[in-house]
Amino acid sequence: MAVLPPNVSAETFESAVREFAAAVGEEWVFTSDADLELYRDPYSVMRGTELESLASAAVAPASVEEVQQIVRIANRYRTPLFPISTGKNYAYGGASANLSGSVIVDLKRMNRILRVDDERNFALVEPGVTYFDLYRYIQQRGLKVWIDPADVAWGGLVGNALDRGMGYTLPFFRDHANAACGVEVVLANGDVMRTGMGALPAADTWQDYKHGFGPDPSGLFPQGNFGIVTKMGFRLMPQPEHYRTGLIRVPRRGDLSETIKIVNYLSDSHMIGEVFYESPLRALLSDVGFRDAANRRGGGNEAELDRYAADSGLAAWQVELQFYGPRATCLANWEYAKERFAREISGSSFVEGESVDLPMTEEQLHNPNPWFRSGLWHREAGQGVPSMSAWSLVNTRSPQSPDGRTIAHAGFFPIIPRSGEGVFRAQQVFGDAFADLGLPPFNAALSTPLVWAMFAYQMSFPMPNDNAQVHRALLHLVRVAADNGFGDYRVPPFYQDHVTATYSFGSDALRRFHETLKDAADPNGILAPGRGGIWPSAYRQYRYDWEQDV
Amino acid sequence: MAVLPPNVSAETFESAVREFAAAVGEEWVFTSDADLELYRDPYSVMRGTELESLASAAVAPASVEEVQQIVRIANRYRTPLFPISTGKNYAYGGASANLSGSVIVDLKRMNRILRVDDERNFALVEPGVTYFDLYRYIQQRGLKVWIDPADVAWGGLVGNALDRGMGYTLPFFRDHANAACGVEVVLANGDVMRTGMGALPAADTWQDYKHGFGPDPSGLFPQGNFGIVTKMGFRLMPQPEHYRTGLIRVPRRGDLSETIKIVNYLSDSHMIGEVFYESPLRALLSDVGFRDAANRRGGGNEAELDRYAADSGLAAWQVELQFYGPRATCLANWEYAKERFAREISGSSFVEGESVDLPMTEEQLHNPNPWFRSGLWHREAGQGVPSMSAWSLVNTRSPQSPDGRTIAHAGFFPIIPRSGEGVFRAQQVFGDAFADLGLPPFNAALSTPLVWAMFAYQMSFPMPNDNAQVHRALLHLVRVAADNGFGDYRVPPFYQDHVTATYSFGSDALRRFHETLKDAADPNGILAPGRGGIWPSAYRQYRYDWEQDV
Repeated sequence: MAVLPPNVSAETFESAVREFAAAVGEEWVFTSDADLELYRDPYSVMRGTELESLASAAVAPASVEEVQQIVRIANRYRTPLFPISTGKNYAYGGASANLSGSVIVDLKRMNRILRVDDERNFALVEPGVTYFDLYRYIQQRGLKVWIDPADVAWGGLVGNALDRGMGYTLPFFRDHANAACGVEVVLANGDVMRTGMGALPAADTWQDYKHGFGPDPSGLFPQGNFGIVTKMGFRLMPQPEHYRTGLIRVPRRGDLSETIKIVNYLSDSHMIGEVFYESPLRALLSDVGFRDAANRRGGGNEAELDRYAADSGLAAWQVELQFYGPRATCLANWEYAKERFAREISGSSFVEGESVDLPMTEEQLHNPNPWFRSGLWHREAGQGVPSMSAWSLVNTRSPQSPDGRTIAHAGFFPIIPRSGEGVFRAQQVFGDAFADLGLPPFNAALSTPLVWAMFAYQMSFPMPNDNAQVHRALLHLVRVAADNGFGDYRVPPFYQDHVTATYSFGSDALRRFHETLKDAADPNGILAPGRGGIWPSAYRQYRYDWEQDV
Repeated sequence: MAVLPPNVSAETFESAVREFAAAVGEEWVFTSDADLELYRDPYSVMRGTELESLASAAVAPASVEEVQQIVRIANRYRTPLFPISTGKNYAYGGASANLSGSVIVDLKRMNRILRVDDERNFALVEPGVTYFDLYRYIQQRGLKVWIDPADVAWGGLVGNALDRGMGYTLPFFRDHANAACGVEVVLANGDVMRTGMGALPAADTWQDYKHGFGPDPSGLFPQGNFGIVTKMGFRLMPQPEHYRTGLIRVPRRGDLSETIKIVNYLSDSHMIGEVFYESPLRALLSDVGFRDAANRRGGGNEAELDRYAADSGLAAWQVELQFYGPRATCLANWEYAKERFAREISGSSFVEGESVDLPMTEEQLHNPNPWFRSGLWHREAGQGVPSMSAWSLVNTRSPQSPDGRTIAHAGFFPIIPRSGEGVFRAQQVFGDAFADLGLPPFNAALSTPLVWAMFAYQMSFPMPNDNAQVHRALLHLVRVAADNGFGDYRVPPFYQDHVTATYSFGSDALRRFHETLKDAADPNGILAPGRGGIWPSAYRQYRYDWEQDV
């Protein structure tokens, strides 16, 4: 065991490990290098350096009672714990803890699907349940509900919601933390607590009414460290009767603003699922002059880009819409969308997409309509079907190099106002930031928002193929984003102090409030110290001020 | 000043009042009996008794800075505070505090509408803003968003959301605590904290993305006492193009189960707003035999009630649906609903309701279609129009008696599973409970669920016209409900300990967790001690164990 928890002697740690083994069984405590290798983040920016976060041990409980015992042992021996559900959180740290030397609490054995109700439309699951597991369960029983899978879907519902992951169907369901309804947590003192109606022992409405009575602490658990979640409820979308897609193109760069207004209307009225924006002008990127225009400092020039669009006959923007509901409703909503665009944006054009009754046949599922462009990675997820489509994004980006070094993979997805103005400003801010960093340009003026959040936009960026560059870029981008009002929504543990420092209103009032609560609820600071930027007093000296490195 | 805060001498209290006056101005500190009369709950169960909660003073700040000063003064003099926004929380305690002798912090002067955006569809308001205020603001500017008003609508958005009030339009919006997006609070230490993207100083997305980064403590403020909310954001529904209603009748008692399944499907797919269930069999209540059948102990007898339905030609149940969206979508959804009912419940019948393009004309607004039955109090609210319709329910129930005594008015709305089985069991449980209490029967077998919550049902009950009986009934009903799995969602301060005691999972783990956090965040316990059943250590002896009185 090369790594020990801070301030814990090898001897004390051995005693703790012995007690963990007594609680969960020898075979479910892992301390060998070979076993602990599996808990390293393969895409860590600090992979192989002395700053990489490494586990001192891992322990895999099978029940809530075992989790309680682990927490009590950790308090006794002051061994910090870091709970993971499936650990498949690549781009966000995988299974690695904020504090190196933490004991990973691997909840993969707690993988029961406790309930799925397709009349009241909810599920209750343990942390080890993956999207594939739940999908199979529903399919095998012919239940009439959908899941809203993350892509890639080998991860779990609980872990994804606790990291505020997002999906692809209707707005309410694709914000996974929002769709959660009721949690059970083991607190730092070993108590088992249920939120919402779960606190009322005889209630059958735990997954129906999330607030319960009195305050609701549920929000403290996502991206936080106030408890180990052992059960979580989710609202499910009823299986729609029909699914339809349609593509809308608008000719001019400035049309994006009105496009976004109309799409906001459709989305906030719950008429559409996740939408997919793109710029057909990307087809011109082999033209050096155009490439320069797409990457100009200070943001894209409207007149210049409009000339390229007009000359090429390509639309400046396109947006794909997904409709769910009865067949006639899908059609009515699509017709309404077309009518709004035709009326409000001259030169709008329309492409009919898929129109399919649900549930799909096996053949439809596996041989989607040829209309679907290859590489359109969000499609299956938008139809409630889990897949590994997006894995290729990680995979191709991170070749194992001959010396065994992997290339860092870290998500940076700032929250952006859902307006043309917001998108254009983000293009400019991040385009210039890449130039300042000396990184290859990413055609900023053609970059488009991701519409995962219910009411906000995000953007994605190509990261460099060198870990030191990724590190420098992330520090800089988080800071530049914050200075311009764009806050990162999720980041690997290594950068959580940096992002937290940007959420600084009122002299870091939010962080200080959390740390006051943390010290009261977890006086020994054993639960995931540092997660979400919250350091308990016992480990507060491990907070890192990244500003000095920006 | 007849009432003082606990453990505060008259002299100390005078000093505190002087400092409050220095902070907000003499004219905004109230200590006379005549002024404090306005902060009494006119409908208190304990009105006029020594158990009635009375204010020691009231103070009305005009700004966040003044709220901060009030909190600092309260810490210095140990004067408990009880913040109210508009104080119009009748049936739930009005402006009265959990702890008698509290100083009411009346936020009515903080009534600015800070922002309404009808392209990104949100509002940001101060606590004193009423539904009427926001409606007028939107109408005057011709903005294309709706509010989801509480009925009665003279109360404020912030106070209603903080008490988890509900409305009448689409599911996402009518759960007012759910539709909230971003809060600003003054904490017990005087800090000003913003949640979500509000914590990122330059962000323009405070009302777009509610989670922010790291844990989100927003859930601690509704029905809680962790801060004084000074600003709150709300997601708004885009103004729909069209509004349509339709009524569906089903012939047999047992048809309720399938009816509910279909309505759940429509609602969870966001195809309908709040629905209104009723039993047409109420028309038979002048028949003594039928009245007996409707009030039988052990619940309604299906065969017996079906005979009455068949003989009278009346439907056992009816449900009114509200559709929002483009005209063709409203029609498609209504046609789909009819088709589902016709296919799945034999003998279903349909009545076409309203079908109106929006926004309505002044005439349509004030002279609704004669199809609307008089007394149908939820109609205007379902169209996003604030009104005082439901005030008559309070008003008529609470005549001022000759001796100046008023009759208690207290809400009791348990959360019930959204299924036929759930409703039938609730009918039986509460029907029997009324009989056990010796109260007049309320035709339990015809009682129907209220569909305010997004995914749960509630029920309402006629309270007796005698305060002592109301008291006895509430204590009993809360306990019986909990024993049967039905938890109360909201209750006047006087009964919050009683309800909290029913949310007891894990030896009151939820309450104990809250009180651990409370003592850390508010060591002097000055913020609303007792609210939501959470007593800070300084006042913990005031928790009342109602079980002894049940």
